[in-house]
This record gives sequence, structure tokens and C-alpha cells, in this order.
Amino acid sequence: MTEAVTVVMGQIDPVVGDIDGNVHRIIKAAEQAKDQFHADIIVFPEMTLLGYPPEDLLLRNGLYPQIEQALGKLCDELNDIVCVVGYPMMDDLGERFNMAAWIHKGTIKASYIKQNLPNYSVFDEQRYFTEGHQPCVIEYKGIRFGLLICEDIWKISPCTQAKEAGAEVILNLNASPFSEEKHQDRIATLQRRVDEIKRPIIYVNQVGGQDDLVFDGGSFAISSTGEVMVQSPQFEKALTAVKLEKQVDSVEVMQGEQAQIFHGEARIYEALKLGVYDYVSKNGFPGVLLGLSGGIDSALTLAIAVDALGADKVEAVMMPFRYTADISKEDAAKQAETMQVSYHTVPIEPMYEAFEQSLAPLFAGKSEDLTEENLQARIRGTLLMALSNKNGKMVLATSNKSEVSVGYSTLYGDMVGGFSPLKDVPKTLVYRLAKYRNSLSPVIPERVITRPPSAELRPDQVDQDSLPDYDVLDEIIRLFVKQDKTPQQIIELGFDPEEVNKVIRLINVSEYKRRQSAPGIKITQRAYGRDRRYPITSRYSE
Amino acid sequence: MTEAVTVVMGQIDPVVGDIDGNVHRIIKAAEQAKDQFHADIIVFPEMTLLGYPPEDLLLRNGLYPQIEQALGKLCDELNDIVCVVGYPMMDDLGERFNMAAWIHKGTIKASYIKQNLPNYSVFDEQRYFTEGHQPCVIEYKGIRFGLLICEDIWKISPCTQAKEAGAEVILNLNASPFSEEKHQDRIATLQRRVDEIKRPIIYVNQVGGQDDLVFDGGSFAISSTGEVMVQSPQFEKALTAVKLEKQVDSVEVMQGEQAQIFHGEARIYEALKLGVYDYVSKNGFPGVLLGLSGGIDSALTLAIAVDALGADKVEAVMMPFRYTADISKEDAAKQAETMQVSYHTVPIEPMYEAFEQSLAPLFAGKSEDLTEENLQARIRGTLLMALSNKNGKMVLATSNKSEVSVGYSTLYGDMVGGFSPLKDVPKTLVYRLAKYRNSLSPVIPERVITRPPSAELRPDQVDQDSLPDYDVLDEIIRLFVKQDKTPQQIIELGFDPEEVNKVIRLINVSEYKRRQSAPGIKITQRAYGRDRRYPITSRYSE
Repeated sequence: MTEAVTVVMGQIDPVVGDIDGNVHRIIKAAEQAKDQFHADIIVFPEMTLLGYPPEDLLLRNGLYPQIEQALGKLCDELNDIVCVVGYPMMDDLGERFNMAAWIHKGTIKASYIKQNLPNYSVFDEQRYFTEGHQPCVIEYKGIRFGLLICEDIWKISPCTQAKEAGAEVILNLNASPFSEEKHQDRIATLQRRVDEIKRPIIYVNQVGGQDDLVFDGGSFAISSTGEVMVQSPQFEKALTAVKLEKQVDSVEVMQGEQAQIFHGEARIYEALKLGVYDYVSKNGFPGVLLGLSGGIDSALTLAIAVDALGADKVEAVMMPFRYTADISKEDAAKQAETMQVSYHTVPIEPMYEAFEQSLAPLFAGKSEDLTEENLQARIRGTLLMALSNKNGKMVLATSNKSEVSVGYSTLYGDMVGGFSPLKDVPKTLVYRLAKYRNSLSPVIPERVITRPPSAELRPDQVDQDSLPDYDVLDEIIRLFVKQDKTPQQIIELGFDPEEVNKVIRLINVSEYKRRQSAPGIKITQRAYGRDRRYPITSRYSE
Repeated sequence: MTEAVTVVMGQIDPVVGDIDGNVHRIIKAAEQAKDQFHADIIVFPEMTLLGYPPEDLLLRNGLYPQIEQALGKLCDELNDIVCVVGYPMMDDLGERFNMAAWIHKGTIKASYIKQNLPNYSVFDEQRYFTEGHQPCVIEYKGIRFGLLICEDIWKISPCTQAKEAGAEVILNLNASPFSEEKHQDRIATLQRRVDEIKRPIIYVNQVGGQDDLVFDGGSFAISSTGEVMVQSPQFEKALTAVKLEKQVDSVEVMQGEQAQIFHGEARIYEALKLGVYDYVSKNGFPGVLLGLSGGIDSALTLAIAVDALGADKVEAVMMPFRYTADISKEDAAKQAETMQVSYHTVPIEPMYEAFEQSLAPLFAGKSEDLTEENLQARIRGTLLMALSNKNGKMVLATSNKSEVSVGYSTLYGDMVGGFSPLKDVPKTLVYRLAKYRNSLSPVIPERVITRPPSAELRPDQVDQDSLPDYDVLDEIIRLFVKQDKTPQQIIELGFDPEEVNKVIRLINVSEYKRRQSAPGIKITQRAYGRDRRYPITSRYSE
């Protein structure tokens, strides 16, 4: 038996396009891994040097010399530790590859080309990369390490290939975005892999928000018998040591840190917080502002924003109109006070009247309809944007997934904003998250949770005047959008045919609105955005 | 020598998702081909039954039984003619294929699976399809036909493979979107192919607008020596006969119709007209409305809209403010009168004052800045949307590519609209198109073309206060966006370093606005939208 080898899982947050910054993050983490854990090896996430997903930045030829330079810098600066990093490479023929390098003592001792290029869901890797075909196994301190990148581990072949090439441990570099059940899926998948190859796997994921994606970290090491021996925390940067021990004819992962993994509402709330925090901070906004209506969506959005950014970075605006209930004003003011955020009230009556009078000659003889409701929402949107323009804070949109699905929101009105935290959160989950947040400390007035939801755009309006109950609505949306069920299949599950057809029709005709909506945070297996790409012009029906 | 065989190029406009409608279009075209040309064979575009690009509709399992049924209907109804159509297929393992079928006398006699699946630019076919590997050659009336689909013809292998399998003529089904130089590219590419295989090729393209794409048709047949023997018209539906003659040991295309192909500004103007016409008509809008400012962008947009839809479907609104020049009001009114469109004037002063007063307490002590300019634009956007909500007409946005590039436009203001015809048209081309349109008949007041461009959002403002001259700006944009040149490379071409860096910085920081912009019509080799996918959060620089 030789001495143990220490591998540190470098769960960092590479920023997309920030090559110099990422080099700095890598070096800092490597030094800390050395100091803190006497690490032999530090493994970073997929595409460490560029961040993930870099999208069409990969098509810029100017990128590749910069990456070469960054690799050179890593070779120069990291001497006492093996560093495994991910990056893009372009060969002389102009073909691009998704790579991992084993850097040691000033040179790249070995490199690996990703073999499985995901091109589904939010992934477009076949737009950029040519796949590799070779394993990469390298021996260090008596242990043979096999390198794999992300999707490679989700299918059996690259794993088996690495084993056959002599790998005793697999090092897997990932950029795996969060969705509700993803962490369990990763563990279950890796358990199948170790069952097939009887080798331990060290799974390193990145952490942090990038536009509509949140990477939840949660790196882990799994033994050759399928046990999670070491677990890094979720939703935060972390360096976590994994001790490997050479045994008679194998290598095994020793028991190590076991960070807590989040479940249920807590897990989603943490993802939303991280998504908001990183969108705001990486894009350099001094803070956020939002319209606080007294309803549940803006109440939850405010809570997330304050928890993510701190109360001093958040500003709430109540913009009442003749249909705004007193309890809405009271509850908005109360939450703003509880959460200690800057709070203003701007009644929209004067603007509404000015629009009404200016439009009167053109609207003569026409009755009131959705136009007047949308006008209220657009005046509010314009006010928020004026405040945003003046003080630099970014507007948060407050629409939830149920509304986004059926188009129950006003384009350029309540859809205004740079980021839309609840875009993938169905209304029923909005309620559960509000209750969860209040269980930590009561910040959302109870009445906001218990009163019937209303857009308050006409007298005595409630959402259920024009929509099915939210538990029914959300289930129809889930079956249609996430599971791709046909209307007939949904009806056969016991739903009212009229409601099913109405909801699906609304989903189909609202694509044009979604196309102009702000990015939000993917938390389900199918979010709107690059995860679900539908034509606007379409006559498809089932 | 046998008798000639007549192949008709079925240049139709399949509507995405409209399977029943597309079956009807196919049958009608086949009957007409039979009646008019005594056609033996009619060849339709790629993915005829579903329309192209169907995007994630392809992920719906409910689609495939409908396609089966549609194929059954074609088999039942088409008896006296061979019909070659494109469609998607799913096998028992859930793999999807991009197919072409040779339908004759009630059955599919042969079928072909597309081999080259484009996954670049606007194409995502590897997201959906598994590639084929086999040629498909079928003999009819003594001639052996090889089937290929679109991208297959852009590389040598599937063509050579078809020839080696005995093909004497290639039938190529396409859904090839328009861009400036595309038609010449297609002909040049096919000339290379026939030079390699010495076989004639019949190239059938679809026609019509689909969201941000325009398919220009322009189907053609090329002889084994590389001559375009038959040319279908561009930008319109057409059935065009191609006569094939069996010669001693080969088959040749006879001389046939030679429709005129558009060049220069005319070509782009036709593409824009078709794009607007189809977006409006396929989505069922009763017409369009737009803000007419007295500037060149809205003037050209109005001309395109009227030429595409007819004056009775178009409404123009002048929304003057204290900074609006008298000549702007005069020129807008004059163009509206010349083009005989419904025209209203709604001054925005009352709304502006209402906002100003309501915001005064919050803006106390802060000086005027972009906020007040954006406010004017957003009031106009809100007015247009109110009119649109009330009368059902869709708002056309009027931003050009130069503005979209550098973010010289107001989100939720002048960016408001369901469709943005000039989104991919640089400002210098806007001028050329305006002059071209006036050369047909003078509709845009001359002064609109000759006066210095201004957003008129503050006193005496002209665009060149804050932007380089448009000829410089557009060239920097072209080099950076289309050609992916680095700032250094652009500067080396002789541009001012300060201007280059400023423009590129503006392009990079405006991604968030583009993400919320309406779809426009791709006319260049790289349009914003799915053709150029950039992260919003990015620190990349070159």
C-alpha cells in the first residue's frame, strides 16, 4: 500500500468570457488546495478557462490565442500541484474541441477531448465542437487517472473505454445546470457507471448563475461500490478534499466531508437566490427594483431579491390605481417595512388619464376591453424603467411560469425587466416557496398568501375568472410542456376537455410574448427559452 | 432514345405545423402539374408536410402519427403522378429522421434519410435528427433518380454516393433560407457538384416567410455541364417544368423557363416584403400599424408594409413632442397621404407631463439624462400598443441593424412591436433601399432621405452626436459581427481605434436588449437571433 493521494474538487464559479479572471480563480484555488489540504491534484469544472456555456463566443477566432496564453500562464504558475482544467481548443483545420488538460510542472502532460457532445435541452455543443474518440489515462503517484468531461459519463462507452485503457479512478469535469431532480439523477447515473466499471469517480461541477442557468455545484466522489464518500456543498464555491488510497489491485475513495444537500422548496429557493445574485453581480448592477403589488408573485420576488442581495440593494415601488385594494397597499407597505427595503408609492391615475384622453378620439365608439388593462400595466412598466434608468438598478420582472405559459401578462407592462426570477416557477410552487420562506422568518404578510390571486386590473377581478384553478392549470402545463403529452392524453388523465384545450391554445398563441421576455432561471426539466424552442408562426395542433 | 420525362419543381409555401393544409397544398400542386405540364414527377421542398423549420415541434410524439396519416392521404389521392415529398419520421427506438419519400400509385416506393444535418447558423438539425447513411436511387420511365435533401448537396459525399448507386439525375429537396448572396452560392455549389459527378441536378426550394427567415424559392435545374437550364421565379410560389431527355448513356436537362432573378436592392426589398406579408398573414393579423416619425427607418418600413399588404391594411401614427421638427410632421403626413394609409397624430406632451410630475419627487435633485429620452420613446410604444390592442393590428418595430447592434433604441419604447422588418438591415442599406423604392415610384419624401438622421429626443440632436458616421459604423459592425474580426484586425484595416472600441463595446453590452427584441428578417449572412447566440452575462473581450 502506497501513501494516500489527495484530490481536491475545485468547485469554483468561472465567469463566462472572463479568461484572465478565471485564470486567477484557478490559481487562487490551487494555492488554497495546496495550503489547506496538501493536495496533490486539483480538478476544476468543464470549460474552466472560458466559463460555461460560452455559446457563440466559441465561434470567435480571437478566442483561441487567448486560451493558449491562459494555459501558458497556468503552466508557469502552478508547480507543486497537478491541475486539471477544461478549455476550448481549435486545431489547424479550424475544428474546435471541448478539452481537459492535466497540467503539471510547467507543461500539459496529457489532454483529453470530450466524446459525447450534448445537443438537446439547453445544450448546443454540436454547433461548436468535433467529438474526440480517444481515452486519456495518466499515472501519478502510482494511480492511473482517466479524464472524462460531463456528458461522457452519462453514457457507458467513454467510461468503459477509460477503464480498458487502465484507469483506476475517473476524474469527471462538469458544467451541469440545476433542475429540480438533477442532483439525484447525477448520483444515480454515476452509480450505474461504477456498477459497470467498478472504479471510483470524482465528479466536479461548477457553481454559479449564468443568464438563465444556475449551476448548483454539489461535486461529489463516489466509491467503486456506488457510495457517495465525499459531498461538496450545493450553491456555493467550495474546495473539498478527496483522499484516494491505493489498495492491492484497486484504488478507493476514503470517507470525507459530507455537506448537506438541499431538498424540496429549500433547494429551489437557493437556486433562485443564486441565480438572482449572479445575474445582478456579474452584470455589475448596483441593485434591483421591482413593482410590489400586494400580490404573491412580487412578494416572493422581493423576498428572494433581499435574501440574495441584501435589503440595501433592493427598492420596491407600489403603483396603485383605482382597482388596487386597500389590503394590497397595506400588505406591500408592510412587507417593504419588514424587509427594510426602500419603498415608494407612485399612483398611476394621472398617467392613465392622460393616455385615456389622448386616445379618446381614436377609441370613440369602442368599448373597454383588455386595452385598458394593458395600459395600466404598461404605465407601471414605464415608471419602473424610468426609475431604473435614473438610478441604475435593474428591474426584476415578477411573472411566474403559469402566467408566462398562458400569456397572462402584459408585454412591455408587467413583463418589463432585465431578469425574471420566477419565469420557470409555476404558481402553485410560488405559494409553496412563499410558505417555505416564511417558515425561516415571517417576511411575507400572511394575507398575501391566503387571499385569492388577482391582477387588479378591473373591479373585483380574480385570476380564476379567466383561468382554471392553479393546481389544475399547473398540472396541464406540466403535462403539455414538460412531458409533451397530447391534449387527448391529458384529457384521459381526468382533466376537463374544455379546460385542457383552452390552456393548450393559450400556451401555443403566447409564444410571441415569451420570445420578448426577460431571461429567467431554469428550475424544471423544461424551461422556456433555449430549453424549449418553438416557432411563433405555427398552425400545429394535436 | 426514349421519350422525355417531365419533372415539375413544386415551389410551394408549406406552413409550419399545418399538416392538413400542407397535404392540401401538395395535392393541389400535383393536380396542377399534371394538368398544366403533363408532369410525370413533382418534387417538393424539404420537410414539405410539416414546413421548415419546425423547431421543437419535432420533439412532440403526437406529431408522428399525424405525419403517417398525411402520407397515407397522399398515397390515396395521388395516382397518376410520382410525388416526392419531405417529412419527419420517428422509428420504434424513438430516433427521428429527416426523410424524403417517392410516392407512386398508392405507396411509398422508396424513401431516403438525410445524411448531412446542418447544426450551424440558424440550423439545429442535430438537436432533432439522426443522420442516414444510404443512398436512394429509383428508376422511373427508364431514368434512375437519386434523392438528396438540402445540406446533402453542399458536401461531396452524398452526391458521389448517389452517382455510384446509379443515379442519372439528382432530385434535391431544399428549405434554404434567403440571405444576400445565397442564390449565387447555391448555383456555384451545384456547379461544383455537377463538375464532380457529371449528372444534372434539380434543386427545389420552398418559398415564403417563417418568423425570422424568408425562403426565396428560386428553384432551378442544372445540366451535367453546369448550366442553369431552368430557373423558377424568386419570392413567389411556382410550378416549373423540367424536361429530362434520356441520351445514349446519360440523362440531360432540356432548356426551359428562365425566370428573372433579383439583384442588389431589389432582391432585398422583395425579401423584406415577403417576410412581412407572411408573418402578418400566417399569424392572422388584420393589418399593421407603426409609428411614423418623419425619419428614414419608419418611412421605409411604411413603404415595405404597404407594398406587402396593401394600403388598407396599414395605419401610421405620428406622435410628436416638443423636439419633433415641423419638417418631420410635414414629411410623415405627406408620405401617409402619398401611400394612402390611415394616419393619426397623437401628441405625447400630456402623458410626458403626467409622468414627469409623478416622478418629480423621486427624481428630485437629479439632472436630466437618457431617462427622459427613453420616457418619450416608451410613451410612444405604449400608445402604439394601446391602438394595437384595440384594433387588432400588429405593431411593426422600425429599428435597423445599426441601432440594434449598438443598442441605439429604447427597450419597450421604439423596440415595441410584433415584427421588426429592418432588424437585419444596416442604416446605409436603409438609405439605399429607400432610394430604390422611390425609383419605382416616389413615395418617401426626398427630404427624409437627405436630412441628417435624428432620434429627436432632445433639442438639435442628430445621430452622429453619439455614433460614428453610418458608413463607418456599418462597416465596423459587418467586420465584427459577420466576419468575427477582432478589434485589432479592424483597426489594422484603417479604422479609428477609439471608434472601433466604442462600437464593439456597445455591441457587447446591448445583448440584453436584443434578447427582448421582436423577430426580424434575416437578410445577411449573420443576423441577430438564432443566427448569433451570445451570452448576456459575459466579460469576453479581444
